[in-house]
Amino acid sequence: MSAELDTTHDPALRSWVESANAADADFPIQNLPYGRFRRNHTDEPWRIGIAIGDQVLDLKLAAEQCPWPTDVAALLQPLAAGDLNAFMDLGPDARRTLRTALSQALTEGSEQGPFLELCLVPQTEVELSVPCRIGDYTDFYTGIHHATTVGKLFRPDNPLLPNYKWVPIGYHGRGSSIVTSGQGFRRPRGQFKGPDDPHPSFGPCKRLDYELELGAFIGGSNAMGEPIDIEDAEDRLFGVVLLNDWSARDVQAWEYQPLGPFLSKSFATTISPWIVTPEALAPFRVAFERSADDPQPLPYLDSAANRASGGLDIILEVWLQTAAMREADQPHQRLMASNFRDSYWTLAQLITHHASNGCNLASGDLLGSGTQSGPQPGQGGSLLELSAGGKQPLALASGEQRTFLQDGDSVLLRAYCERGGARRIGFGECEGTVLPAVAPRG
Amino acid sequence: MSAELDTTHDPALRSWVESANAADADFPIQNLPYGRFRRNHTDEPWRIGIAIGDQVLDLKLAAEQCPWPTDVAALLQPLAAGDLNAFMDLGPDARRTLRTALSQALTEGSEQGPFLELCLVPQTEVELSVPCRIGDYTDFYTGIHHATTVGKLFRPDNPLLPNYKWVPIGYHGRGSSIVTSGQGFRRPRGQFKGPDDPHPSFGPCKRLDYELELGAFIGGSNAMGEPIDIEDAEDRLFGVVLLNDWSARDVQAWEYQPLGPFLSKSFATTISPWIVTPEALAPFRVAFERSADDPQPLPYLDSAANRASGGLDIILEVWLQTAAMREADQPHQRLMASNFRDSYWTLAQLITHHASNGCNLASGDLLGSGTQSGPQPGQGGSLLELSAGGKQPLALASGEQRTFLQDGDSVLLRAYCERGGARRIGFGECEGTVLPAVAPRG
Repeated sequence: MSAELDTTHDPALRSWVESANAADADFPIQNLPYGRFRRNHTDEPWRIGIAIGDQVLDLKLAAEQCPWPTDVAALLQPLAAGDLNAFMDLGPDARRTLRTALSQALTEGSEQGPFLELCLVPQTEVELSVPCRIGDYTDFYTGIHHATTVGKLFRPDNPLLPNYKWVPIGYHGRGSSIVTSGQGFRRPRGQFKGPDDPHPSFGPCKRLDYELELGAFIGGSNAMGEPIDIEDAEDRLFGVVLLNDWSARDVQAWEYQPLGPFLSKSFATTISPWIVTPEALAPFRVAFERSADDPQPLPYLDSAANRASGGLDIILEVWLQTAAMREADQPHQRLMASNFRDSYWTLAQLITHHASNGCNLASGDLLGSGTQSGPQPGQGGSLLELSAGGKQPLALASGEQRTFLQDGDSVLLRAYCERGGARRIGFGECEGTVLPAVAPRG
Repeated sequence: MSAELDTTHDPALRSWVESANAADADFPIQNLPYGRFRRNHTDEPWRIGIAIGDQVLDLKLAAEQCPWPTDVAALLQPLAAGDLNAFMDLGPDARRTLRTALSQALTEGSEQGPFLELCLVPQTEVELSVPCRIGDYTDFYTGIHHATTVGKLFRPDNPLLPNYKWVPIGYHGRGSSIVTSGQGFRRPRGQFKGPDDPHPSFGPCKRLDYELELGAFIGGSNAMGEPIDIEDAEDRLFGVVLLNDWSARDVQAWEYQPLGPFLSKSFATTISPWIVTPEALAPFRVAFERSADDPQPLPYLDSAANRASGGLDIILEVWLQTAAMREADQPHQRLMASNFRDSYWTLAQLITHHASNGCNLASGDLLGSGTQSGPQPGQGGSLLELSAGGKQPLALASGEQRTFLQDGDSVLLRAYCERGGARRIGFGECEGTVLPAVAPRG
């Protein structure tokens, strides 16, 4: 992604889609994220759309109904066919060209306005799926404050392992159980064993948790055996979403040695449905510098560009609504906020590290950032942190308490970028609700 | 899979494909494994075939050229379209019906013989791909002798962790870099750090290894949130292949805590191209009983059928050919043999455990068994074991030595089933050759 601002970021730009001009809109004309939708209560094939204000611009209709320059019409073809992966394959230049064209077409007074008005669907009238075919899913561990706090709970004497500051720690995750915002999931069952239990038992998880993460979608592919230089890594980033890495802490504690988390994570992962592109994030890039106390990255993970602007200033939040709050019409309550600029590694470093052994990445692969906790005690990105491992219940405004999640709890992740001189953009919602565990066989 | 023998196992059955009747044939008429092929040096779409002797029965041609009963013709449709996953979805009854029909048609004197003769392609004239679209890949750790020996190297005081005998330990693997037999792969680069190094370095792996595993393909799917009872688990097994879980030991040792193996495994995994079905394996089922010293499986992992016949008597072998041996026309040398009946968990237990948290499995998902080492010192399923962590070089018949793999080394896995009264069946070859690491940027 280019660090230069282009005209699509001009904060003075206004859209003829009036709802996009509201000061607190997540999807102003400066954002233009990609998603996959269909009209509610239909079996229509999924279509690709762009979120604008409270509407979705249907790119199939837009390709058919509106006059476009030849190059733009060609770029719209895979999108009109509902195949976001094929568009992701085309790389950053294609994405930038289409962004410029859509930005102009959606701007107040544009010639295409009268055509595109017919291609809008209200967001309230659509359901959204995961935005593309997700190939392999990898989850990293870039939140150093999370790693330190959680490390203390699992290994009091040894919270941050010696490799942490050198290796972007990650593990392969489960792709099949990634769902999009708004879908409930059953409390998982699993094996766990308390320190005083003579042997483990199997049943519904008792320490169910969320994790606040960013998810990065890959665009383009590298052949097996061919690494991706750090200078080229950002060209492989298609965009980012919010990601909730639901976690069964009791199952995790018992199963995770020596091969890492498995069933404690694979029952569900929720992502937000709109992919925010590197172009939309360009005004929110920040310098990425290691403190003098920390080792500098090894050369394969280091570049001048990464140091100059590899960080992203994205504010991340967790909100909770219990069943009782929902019953009483009380909205979600904010539990914490952190910022992705505190991540210990940049997205470019994750991509380069992932492919450094020759592992082939492809369009639609998803990389989780790991839990993004802030440096302060109240900034834990999971209940494990906020409740000190379940020892200090969190008092909610409703008068309830939580150590871990109860059935009926809804967790909502939000994110937005806000910096002087730039138009605020948001990520939309990443929400999931805990349903009761499957009943034991009678 | 049914424990009863059906007529397709009759050791007296002979095929009109003469090469299938050789005593040492891997693919006699009693086997009939599924694979995906195309003629050498073409760009034709991949087709599904059945290995018989030294031939492939082209199921697209067979569906078109040969008269079949209506139900069999319907079952052949997805296969004729090249979509093994769609056939896997149909479940075990469909697979059994087609097996019976193909077995009869391939038997000496069958009416369909003259038609099917025109549908054979010599195996020497085809290339083979991975047999289906592989969804999620999971690698388990069921080899207790491997876990104990390797555990001693990583954790001398604590070789077998307390969870090992209770939880079928596994982790998510990388799907994109799974390739089939015959494909070379580059030596991976990665981070490693010796105990006396002040900090880690990045470069070509120095301790490259193989792992001898069985791979199990899932057929059918469970919805997210819906576990699979142990009684139903075997119906979700489509068949098995050999699997080589190539491993970079130096990278693994440095990266694996706390989230498990990642880049040390994701650069390449090789599988054999022919899927051997549960029906072909039926005569080789064995009782699966825990020793009195070991805990009994928790109830969700236990059933009378699993105890009676959940084990599989499959002999597994590792063979090595160095570049010098190849140069001198010396064949691969056998390094060891073990038996899958020594696995600490059955395939049914792996499937049930995997879905026990509600994780959705689907046709084409692949489960690795973990390294299958035997109980004796010479039966290690990896060089890490055979060379005592690189301390005791292995002397080869060529006069060379090996601790870990060198560039040009070819590793060949073989497997077969052989029991009194049953016709021997084999798995074919699972071979891969180490290519030099990618050159550093100059």
